[in-house]
Amino acid sequence: MILLTRRATFSAAHYYWNPAWSKEQNEEVFGKCANLNGHGHNYTLEVTVEGEVDPVSGFVVDLKWLKDVIEDEVMAVYDHRHLNHEVVEFAKTIPTTENIAIAIWKRLEAPVTARGGAKLSRIRVYETADIFAEYRGE
Amino acid sequence: MILLTRRATFSAAHYYWNPAWSKEQNEEVFGKCANLNGHGHNYTLEVTVEGEVDPVSGFVVDLKWLKDVIEDEVMAVYDHRHLNHEVVEFAKTIPTTENIAIAIWKRLEAPVTARGGAKLSRIRVYETADIFAEYRGE
Amino acid sequence: MILLTRRATFSAAHYYWNPAWSKEQNEEVFGKCANLNGHGHNYTLEVTVEGEVDPVSGFVVDLKWLKDVIEDEVMAVYDHRHLNHEVVEFAKTIPTTENIAIAIWKRLEAPVTARGGAKLSRIRVYETADIFAEYRGE
Amino acid sequence: MILLTRRATFSAAHYYWNPAWSKEQNEEVFGKCANLNGHGHNYTLEVTVEGEVDPVSGFVVDLKWLKDVIEDEVMAVYDHRHLNHEVVEFAKTIPTTENIAIAIWKRLEAPVTARGGAKLSRIRVYETADIFAEYRGE
Amino acid sequence: MILLTRRATFSAAHYYWNPAWSKEQNEEVFGKCANLNGHGHNYTLEVTVEGEVDPVSGFVVDLKWLKDVIEDEVMAVYDHRHLNHEVVEFAKTIPTTENIAIAIWKRLEAPVTARGGAKLSRIRVYETADIFAEYRGE
Amino acid sequence: MILLTRRATFSAAHYYWNPAWSKEQNEEVFGKCANLNGHGHNYTLEVTVEGEVDPVSGFVVDLKWLKDVIEDEVMAVYDHRHLNHEVVEFAKTIPTTENIAIAIWKRLEAPVTARGGAKLSRIRVYETADIFAEYRGE
Repeated sequence: MILLTRRATFSAAHYYWNPAWSKEQNEEVFGKCANLNGHGHNYTLEVTVEGEVDPVSGFVVDLKWLKDVIEDEVMAVYDHRHLNHEVVEFAKTIPTTENIAIAIWKRLEAPVTARGGAKLSRIRVYETADIFAEYRGE
Repeated sequence: MILLTRRATFSAAHYYWNPAWSKEQNEEVFGKCANLNGHGHNYTLEVTVEGEVDPVSGFVVDLKWLKDVIEDEVMAVYDHRHLNHEVVEFAKTIPTTENIAIAIWKRLEAPVTARGGAKLSRIRVYETADIFAEYRGE
Repeated sequence: MILLTRRATFSAAHYYWNPAWSKEQNEEVFGKCANLNGHGHNYTLEVTVEGEVDPVSGFVVDLKWLKDVIEDEVMAVYDHRHLNHEVVEFAKTIPTTENIAIAIWKRLEAPVTARGGAKLSRIRVYETADIFAEYRGE
Repeated sequence: MILLTRRATFSAAHYYWNPAWSKEQNEEVFGKCANLNGHGHNYTLEVTVEGEVDPVSGFVVDLKWLKDVIEDEVMAVYDHRHLNHEVVEFAKTIPTTENIAIAIWKRLEAPVTARGGAKLSRIRVYETADIFAEYRGE
Repeated sequence: MILLTRRATFSAAHYYWNPAWSKEQNEEVFGKCANLNGHGHNYTLEVTVEGEVDPVSGFVVDLKWLKDVIEDEVMAVYDHRHLNHEVVEFAKTIPTTENIAIAIWKRLEAPVTARGGAKLSRIRVYETADIFAEYRGE
Repeated sequence: MILLTRRATFSAAHYYWNPAWSKEQNEEVFGKCANLNGHGHNYTLEVTVEGEVDPVSGFVVDLKWLKDVIEDEVMAVYDHRHLNHEVVEFAKTIPTTENIAIAIWKRLEAPVTARGGAKLSRIRVYETADIFAEYRGE
């Protein structure tokens, strides 16, 4: 069993806001992130799959295929987008790094499982070099 | 004469849009950056000053002072902001990496010059790890 | 369950020396690190907590709170200090990367546990880009 | 129990080719990597050992010793080499990142085990900044 | 006048060999790089252009265009290639980092000049994180 | 004319202190750096030489020679040392990043000039990822 990871980056805007709270409550909890104009990040995504190495190809999964899946399922929807306004899973869920990691897991689990041979193992999302979240589907 | 550089980062949203153009023209020239919802980046800023080393302190400038100037003149205005909507110099100027570098030069030149002892030498702005602009005031 | 990590850096001096050994023995085991004048590093610290995402805030823990805890419990004591001479846990324990990771765990476990909602999961300390230790409290 | 990691780099050439396939099949599966002239990478290797901290030295293992083992067992054989033509384990096995990680585990497990005190825990190999494989011997 | 840089990476094999010398002479001068099987690197290329900012677009040059030129003129020829065997300018010239930087300048100068508005300013090539060459066309 | 750079790292302790000042004055000017126990950094040094490419070797200078000169003239004296106590040029000069860059220039200029073929062009010293000084001998 071996783990194989592919990294990708996307640039997106977001803000943190709980509509059940007042402006003051949002600013107290979310600080500068509560600015409704939005701000943004260069997110780094690490997608890890695990499985056995295919003795014929030497691959756990074909990295070109994995790149295309990440492109179709995540990049096409998240990159150069405003997460709150344009990405369906954040219409009512705050796009924190934690929630982005979980959302990307949900987008990738089915196509990785469908292909067979390897399963999705870990999603890591860096909001900046200093903050990252990791989700393993459990 | 020696060059001294301090790096800082800020996270901001922006989009590229020329109001004199149609939606189609904007999308043709600016591609995914023409999304009016905005997207965002973790910008890295390098501020370089040049001067002689003060033999008493060993400093070209006091880095704590330089950090505070960058904080007051740039970070307080740019970080966690939407550049198009909240930063005055981008009300009518497109916030490309080139224009951001020039704008930061304009914000920092006066306070660095006013302090004396060193002059502003170079502003470098990274939009991502792969794209950066550099301005030397000329 | 999700893992959330915050990175921080501190600059400190240290040396390796076992007082039960002769100078020759110390130099044989610790090489250049046995220089009693000390040398130093820019340490990078990664603090990882694990827990469920709070559906109201979208956070495992408030990162501002986590930053403040790291600041108060670690940075205020380690940064710009000589670890052997100024940090109590290294008075009789050699400040290797391994021991620094364990010591930071001990400093952070109680305040993270006291807050509730998430528990301390992992401490990773980089002495340089090429050497790092990781401790999980077990 | 603590994990200690040492990083090292090597520069090597390789290509992907399954001799049981036609040129067309190889190019379909392996794309640009099927070029028999070879191409190359700066690989980054992370070797992680796990064990208890020796209370006398503060070490899990002596990092100088670990560096020498990596040097003798991996660097001397892989660095500035063509993996397909010069490294015995890739004479009939395709040198994918996955297979390189497994091969390095096999090279290091015996000497680390023989020394005692710590066991080999994890081998991570980065082919580029965007692709890495991790093997834990299972 | 402002400088704008775009970074790109390519993975290639190469070796150093002067056919006018004996094997011993080549190994004395070029060390491990004289291995005729070749080894390889992940090269990082920084292409810098300089010019005035177009007040209508905010660009020195269109970065999408610049990316395409780098792709067509450099990546298509260098990436996943053996520089000595497959790239015409290294048929009789040793592909050192210095010579690669000069060769890329020669490939890019004409198309950048032909477009107008900005001129090629600087080519920087990193062979590894620790070695890089820079050429300014003079 | 081409520029060739070699990077190296050293780990050292230092503090900032002007003996002509009181403790209070030192702490006011130098802040946490005035701690006489010392603290430390992983310094990154970039040594740049400039010259013509030798058509026979493809080199501006032999990088192995350059590495050895840096090793002998800088690393052997600075690495794992306390700069204030063990490096002669800092006996009476404060080891700021600026002064370290100038001191390394002085150590390297003569041997690079003596070899001929290329001259020393630029010394850049990073104290941390966020602070660096650059000296060009003028």
